[in-house]
Amino acid sequence: MKPDLNFPRHCLGTEHFTLDQIAGLFDRAEYYLTHPKDGANASILSGRVIANLFFENSTRTQTAFEIAAWRLGARVSSLSIAHSSISKGETVLDTAQNLRAMGVDAIVMRHPDNFAARDLAAQIDIPVINAGDGTNEHPTQGLLDVFTMQRHKKTVAGLRVAICGDIAHSRVARSNIHLLLKMGAVVHVIAPPVLMPENYFTGKVQYFDNLSDGIRGVDVVMMLRIQKERMQQTEIPGVREYAFHWGLDHQKLKSAKPDAIVMHPGPINRGVELDAALADDPKYSVILDQVKNGVAIRTAIFESILGGGK
Amino acid sequence: MKPDLNFPRHCLGTEHFTLDQIAGLFDRAEYYLTHPKDGANASILSGRVIANLFFENSTRTQTAFEIAAWRLGARVSSLSIAHSSISKGETVLDTAQNLRAMGVDAIVMRHPDNFAARDLAAQIDIPVINAGDGTNEHPTQGLLDVFTMQRHKKTVAGLRVAICGDIAHSRVARSNIHLLLKMGAVVHVIAPPVLMPENYFTGKVQYFDNLSDGIRGVDVVMMLRIQKERMQQTEIPGVREYAFHWGLDHQKLKSAKPDAIVMHPGPINRGVELDAALADDPKYSVILDQVKNGVAIRTAIFESILGGGK
Amino acid sequence: MKPDLNFPRHCLGTEHFTLDQIAGLFDRAEYYLTHPKDGANASILSGRVIANLFFENSTRTQTAFEIAAWRLGARVSSLSIAHSSISKGETVLDTAQNLRAMGVDAIVMRHPDNFAARDLAAQIDIPVINAGDGTNEHPTQGLLDVFTMQRHKKTVAGLRVAICGDIAHSRVARSNIHLLLKMGAVVHVIAPPVLMPENYFTGKVQYFDNLSDGIRGVDVVMMLRIQKERMQQTEIPGVREYAFHWGLDHQKLKSAKPDAIVMHPGPINRGVELDAALADDPKYSVILDQVKNGVAIRTAIFESILGGGK
Repeated sequence: MKPDLNFPRHCLGTEHFTLDQIAGLFDRAEYYLTHPKDGANASILSGRVIANLFFENSTRTQTAFEIAAWRLGARVSSLSIAHSSISKGETVLDTAQNLRAMGVDAIVMRHPDNFAARDLAAQIDIPVINAGDGTNEHPTQGLLDVFTMQRHKKTVAGLRVAICGDIAHSRVARSNIHLLLKMGAVVHVIAPPVLMPENYFTGKVQYFDNLSDGIRGVDVVMMLRIQKERMQQTEIPGVREYAFHWGLDHQKLKSAKPDAIVMHPGPINRGVELDAALADDPKYSVILDQVKNGVAIRTAIFESILGGGK
Repeated sequence: MKPDLNFPRHCLGTEHFTLDQIAGLFDRAEYYLTHPKDGANASILSGRVIANLFFENSTRTQTAFEIAAWRLGARVSSLSIAHSSISKGETVLDTAQNLRAMGVDAIVMRHPDNFAARDLAAQIDIPVINAGDGTNEHPTQGLLDVFTMQRHKKTVAGLRVAICGDIAHSRVARSNIHLLLKMGAVVHVIAPPVLMPENYFTGKVQYFDNLSDGIRGVDVVMMLRIQKERMQQTEIPGVREYAFHWGLDHQKLKSAKPDAIVMHPGPINRGVELDAALADDPKYSVILDQVKNGVAIRTAIFESILGGGK
Repeated sequence: MKPDLNFPRHCLGTEHFTLDQIAGLFDRAEYYLTHPKDGANASILSGRVIANLFFENSTRTQTAFEIAAWRLGARVSSLSIAHSSISKGETVLDTAQNLRAMGVDAIVMRHPDNFAARDLAAQIDIPVINAGDGTNEHPTQGLLDVFTMQRHKKTVAGLRVAICGDIAHSRVARSNIHLLLKMGAVVHVIAPPVLMPENYFTGKVQYFDNLSDGIRGVDVVMMLRIQKERMQQTEIPGVREYAFHWGLDHQKLKSAKPDAIVMHPGPINRGVELDAALADDPKYSVILDQVKNGVAIRTAIFESILGGGK
């Protein structure tokens, strides 16, 4: 029998979420957003232990999962696996099986390899939550982003959403697009040609190699973080040129709808992909809402996956 | 309107504490010292999350804040920001705003730049507790030190306190002196000329470039940690010469009052600024009392800043 | 008066455990194993703080102690002391005395030096639990291993147990052998001559320099992790040759009893000292039971050491 790799057994990617599951999750996230510190919730996962197993450093993402788990009364053990430990030679599965044997109830994993979370979930009998696997998916980010759009725009169906930047390497973009297409949004992807994969989402998204064209008339502009390392490795231009061609500021935003919102998964390279003044302009930027909503979404995910009794 | 940067909104430095605030804080610290594990306290900050945001490593100081917060039932998320993460380019304010958006109720921050905590507090609407900012201030250390003096000497007014070592770079010295002068103590500062700033505290302290003279007749001798790196960078002598001229031992302590107490903010370089036998001599050394009192002071600070209801 | 360095004051090594103490500990471990998340246990160490003081990295061992302490309601502060911090010059005793002054109730310590835990325990008045000291002892591992043998084989008396690998540097082997001899097992040690200490356990164990001979007729085969660094430093062969001569697989296991169990303290070098297929074969391998039992044993140890009232 093939293992069930779908939500709410695991949370590995957004592709197979049903509309009902998304709606249910967003309802619960709304509840946690408006009752962030309700003491009654603090016993939902009492006695449970969640492991943050991070093979890439991200103290911020770890903290978001940690706080989400604490809201339900769970304990969180955070394991940052440095390169030295990987060189100790233990496989990811061995590490995870050890955690399971210790009594860990679910594993939140970030790993540099595509499908690392899926591969683990297929081999272990505790839930796995993908906190980013290579350039593949980052489902909790996708969910929190679309949840943020829905809160600001009432409905996602019919929304026009532009995602701009390093599409080729973005797990955030992929997790967003699966949800957006499913929910009836129109998706623009905007990237320098070298950072735009071929046949991306098999023609279901609209491709632009020009920022102003790409954001024309859109409701949402999501700017992706550009890795400076990427600039040196590929033919894409330096910071200044990248900002000039692909960075968003108030002036360029005028192509979008007047009430467009600006999103970014963080951390922001201020002045590179996003102008500092725009990032901080509450008229457009919903970036800190994303962060806040992220804790609510992750709380809802923990509840869905682990909350059904021991 | 200018933001309120004073205690009990934040705890950024000791300069602006009032005598009433100090007395109130010391009262509560006395309570926590004598009721360290009273279960009733464990609900005061229940549901609250405090972030330890450390841009300089200090597992010891992090642990002291962690235990203080736990005593009141708060959760603590510890973020050690390595150099690699800073190079990710996110500003301190962005990191802090993210933590706030996640539901963090207060930030304890250590940072290598002077005024980093103050700058953050001026821009964010959750409390900031300065756990050391460059060579500027380390207010919780200053408070715990003076609290320790008061417990051993009954009153701080009229005490003669000598502080010896790298005055120029000492945030501990500055945080102590603000409190000591306010409370009526007489302060001696003792340093090699190269480590003594000009016009330090505008003549309100007495300057000595000789240890024996500086500690003559004092009630309290506080030895500062000398950074071995500093010896290589400046003209001050090597370890052995530093110990000979500026290190304290039983013999040199004879210049002080017979009942003088010896203090050190830790970690000690045994045999450099402080002789090992003296550091461990319970007749004089109150160094472990400082550590113990530090948890009580920090508990009182968390209570003052966050305890007034959600 | 000499300090009491024995269990249940501390847990430093297995040599001085009495049979009654072992039986009592195994009884409690059995209880925790079968009641892993009983809420009633979660108040046994409520308000207590345990410090994980690790001078060698082992996120896995830290997590096991962490979860064991959480089961009893204690808080755990984990301090990974990097080389940089050691170079700050503070002694282990100073660090530990600071933790004690902060209110830490017990210290779990891993340190690269032999007898580091014992030396600390002799000088501090809170309990110390040795989580591995150099090549000397790793008592909680020894206890969990023998507990695992007893659970699988009903009784340890009369068991024939083979331990194979880098005996010379194995703190795991030594902690096991003290217990096994005391409980009436027959112990085979199998090692390449260069990794076999002279006069090991003064002739009370049987020495083999050949794997097949060493495991002939045994009930338990425990394979030790071989450090790849060791291969470069000594005359022992490379990975492939090591696996050929000293690695265990299904074929070689045929020398042992048909119902022999295979153990490993982890992390496994798959394909080096232990074949991957055998490590994962539930007919023989009890490796994940060891991990699970390890949390139960550590919970029982915390209860014994700290549970007798505040």
